[in-house]
Amino acid sequence: MATVGILGGGQLARMLALAGIPMGLRFAVLDPAEDACAGHCAPLQVGAYDDAAALAAFAARIDVATFDFENVPSASAELLAGRVPVHPGALALATAQDRLAEKTLFRELGIPVPEFAAVDTRESLDDAVARVGVPAVLKTRRLGYDGKGQFRIRSLDEVEAAWQALGAQASTVGLILEAFVPFERELSVVAVRGRDGEFRTWPLTRNWHVDGVLSASLAPAACDPTVAGQAHAYARLLAERLDYVGVFALELFSRGGKLLANEMAPRVHNSGHWTIEGAETSQFENHLRAVLGLPLGDTAARGVSCMLNWIGEMPPAGPVLAQPGGHWHDYGKQSRAGRKVGHATLRADDAQALARALRAAGEGLGRQAQVAPVLDALGAADG
Amino acid sequence: MATVGILGGGQLARMLALAGIPMGLRFAVLDPAEDACAGHCAPLQVGAYDDAAALAAFAARIDVATFDFENVPSASAELLAGRVPVHPGALALATAQDRLAEKTLFRELGIPVPEFAAVDTRESLDDAVARVGVPAVLKTRRLGYDGKGQFRIRSLDEVEAAWQALGAQASTVGLILEAFVPFERELSVVAVRGRDGEFRTWPLTRNWHVDGVLSASLAPAACDPTVAGQAHAYARLLAERLDYVGVFALELFSRGGKLLANEMAPRVHNSGHWTIEGAETSQFENHLRAVLGLPLGDTAARGVSCMLNWIGEMPPAGPVLAQPGGHWHDYGKQSRAGRKVGHATLRADDAQALARALRAAGEGLGRQAQVAPVLDALGAADG
Ligand SMILES: Nc1ncnc2c1ncn2[C@@H]1O[C@H](COP(=O)(O)OP(=O)(O)OP(=O)(O)O)[C@@H](O)[C@H]1O
Ligand SMILES: Nc1ncnc2c1ncn2[C@@H]1O[C@H](COP(=O)(O)OP(=O)(O)OP(=O)(O)O)[C@@H](O)[C@H]1O
Repeated sequence: MATVGILGGGQLARMLALAGIPMGLRFAVLDPAEDACAGHCAPLQVGAYDDAAALAAFAARIDVATFDFENVPSASAELLAGRVPVHPGALALATAQDRLAEKTLFRELGIPVPEFAAVDTRESLDDAVARVGVPAVLKTRRLGYDGKGQFRIRSLDEVEAAWQALGAQASTVGLILEAFVPFERELSVVAVRGRDGEFRTWPLTRNWHVDGVLSASLAPAACDPTVAGQAHAYARLLAERLDYVGVFALELFSRGGKLLANEMAPRVHNSGHWTIEGAETSQFENHLRAVLGLPLGDTAARGVSCMLNWIGEMPPAGPVLAQPGGHWHDYGKQSRAGRKVGHATLRADDAQALARALRAAGEGLGRQAQVAPVLDALGAADG
Repeated sequence: MATVGILGGGQLARMLALAGIPMGLRFAVLDPAEDACAGHCAPLQVGAYDDAAALAAFAARIDVATFDFENVPSASAELLAGRVPVHPGALALATAQDRLAEKTLFRELGIPVPEFAAVDTRESLDDAVARVGVPAVLKTRRLGYDGKGQFRIRSLDEVEAAWQALGAQASTVGLILEAFVPFERELSVVAVRGRDGEFRTWPLTRNWHVDGVLSASLAPAACDPTVAGQAHAYARLLAERLDYVGVFALELFSRGGKLLANEMAPRVHNSGHWTIEGAETSQFENHLRAVLGLPLGDTAARGVSCMLNWIGEMPPAGPVLAQPGGHWHDYGKQSRAGRKVGHATLRADDAQALARALRAAGEGLGRQAQVAPVLDALGAADG
């Protein structure tokens, strides 16, 4: 059976391994951290992503390579690609690593995006503000995640503060100014494309962020079918243009029935964790099937699911496990402020049953605020 | 988080670990074989089950012990129990290890069993045959599995041959003669009991054996609700009498609407593998929840599932993975005649869809004979 190499040994690699071991796959994980949590269920090679010798040793042990982490240096991806198949490929990685390249491609493909402009100097920030308007968000072009490397400009008198905060990075990772979108909802499409071009999407997911970090997801998102169709069409356009192989997520803002693309993640995605219990085939299993050229699995949802992220430290499991359809995920990480350490998924056959379980879990955990927006979205269903 | 020790490192231990790692559990596995397949996802200690030093070292690494294998010497279970909680406990193990003790207990509890009699000598075999009648099955009392250690006596002139085959074991593992049951169906109840006495069962499973080895399972088994209720009541009686903690299976023969108990397995069971995809909570996860004193998960089925066992060697995965609801399990074992090396589960929302997928998979694999009885049982549903 094939050995799959994963660059990055965090929870995404861990869940990939947990999805692949049942199918008889072997894994190898490369991560600079000795305590990378994928190491609990897959052999871990400790090494830097840009260490050519480490990469060569890694390549020698695997049949195919993939990522749990999109910010792998492109030279490293190329080095690996010279030795084993690497999915997703260089173009997808390069595009997703750079918010400017990404948004430019979206626009080229006719996928609507918020106004944006590159920012290289203090002057070009002023030009960008003039073009994009305020409110706006100044972001690093590269290496941002979980809302890090962002500054929200609410009015013109905050432009200077934004430059103070991020200006130094203009010459290293680059900057981009984006119009702030007063969105009604955040949605994501998690999609998979096979080696043979077969394309499938899971039902749309609705997401709630707190301080730039995903807090809760609900799927399938109650959504106008035209809007859902549009979202899936955008994901497909993107996948085909990038000749993408594997799972990716396209994050969208929705407002007044219109969609605007925020970004793509060239990997399995936090907003797809609900698929482990809530879909016939999980994003993790389908990513592996795609990367290995196996038939893709059914992406249909089973009932309705809500995923709750645990940030910083794990709450007690009891209040979730006591709910019918309550499932617990603990990544086995050390607690640390802002760190994603686990999640829970509540699955039910209908929205009403889900609301019941979610309310009870929220109360049991003392996390009413985290579940509140989801209960709200489940709305009248909660009788 | 707790470390769960598993005695035995086969596919059951492997699937327990795969169910527990997502919840943040750690595992340790003790097995005499260096290539025990649970070693692919959990730290493996190579050692004999009756090596006191190995057991002591093992006990020092774990918080609670359980089994993938019921024939652990009772002295070993006791040694462990002196150091950590062990579930299921000594009484359950001792009972399930001995077909005579097991059937005697069934009878005591009012659970109907086929006629049976202990056999110690050639003469007592004659007495037993006189009491039980023919056809009958002569079995070893201990250490039988997958139909090994059994001799079917079709008529009186085969009694001598049965003694020739198994008589030498009368003084080692003991023998029992059981009436042969011309059953219409084989069923199993997979059940779980928590530390606090909470008891749950998954829907009844229908099973087909070939040469004494499980070949296919279908769940939920279409079944008269009174019969199903009876089966669940028997399982409960048994669990309560044994003060059982964890998952177990009760295997039953059904004939003319009556049930006869065949045996119990004091562990997760091959006829419960479908619960991984086909139930809200799998037998593996619920076994761990029970053993750790966590709330038990919902045992409701999701749709209809068929499990197909792969014996000897793995077939190609493609024809199963190409079906909606097709899931693949490869235990990562070396091929060997008669060995359980993997299984597939096909899940669908209704019997008709399951029949369609099953027929297609059976044809794709050239295994029409294996799926035929299941298609038959799905019957008119297959339109
Ligand atoms: N232009 C915008 N308008 C409104 N809100 C925004 C905008 N850009 C980002 N946000 C908010 O911040 C969140 C995180 O932003 P973004 O996705 O750009 O960051 P990231 O660091 O790449 O995050 P992730 O790790 O979640 O992919 C968004 O989900 C959204 O809630
Ligand atoms: N008394 C009987 N009458 C009819 N068939 C029987 C009888 N005993 C066993 N069989 C057949 O042989 C199969 C295996 O028998 P049994 O369960 O006793 O063996 P085992 O070696 O303990 O099996 P397993 O490993 O499946 O638990 C049964 O499922 C059944 O098909």
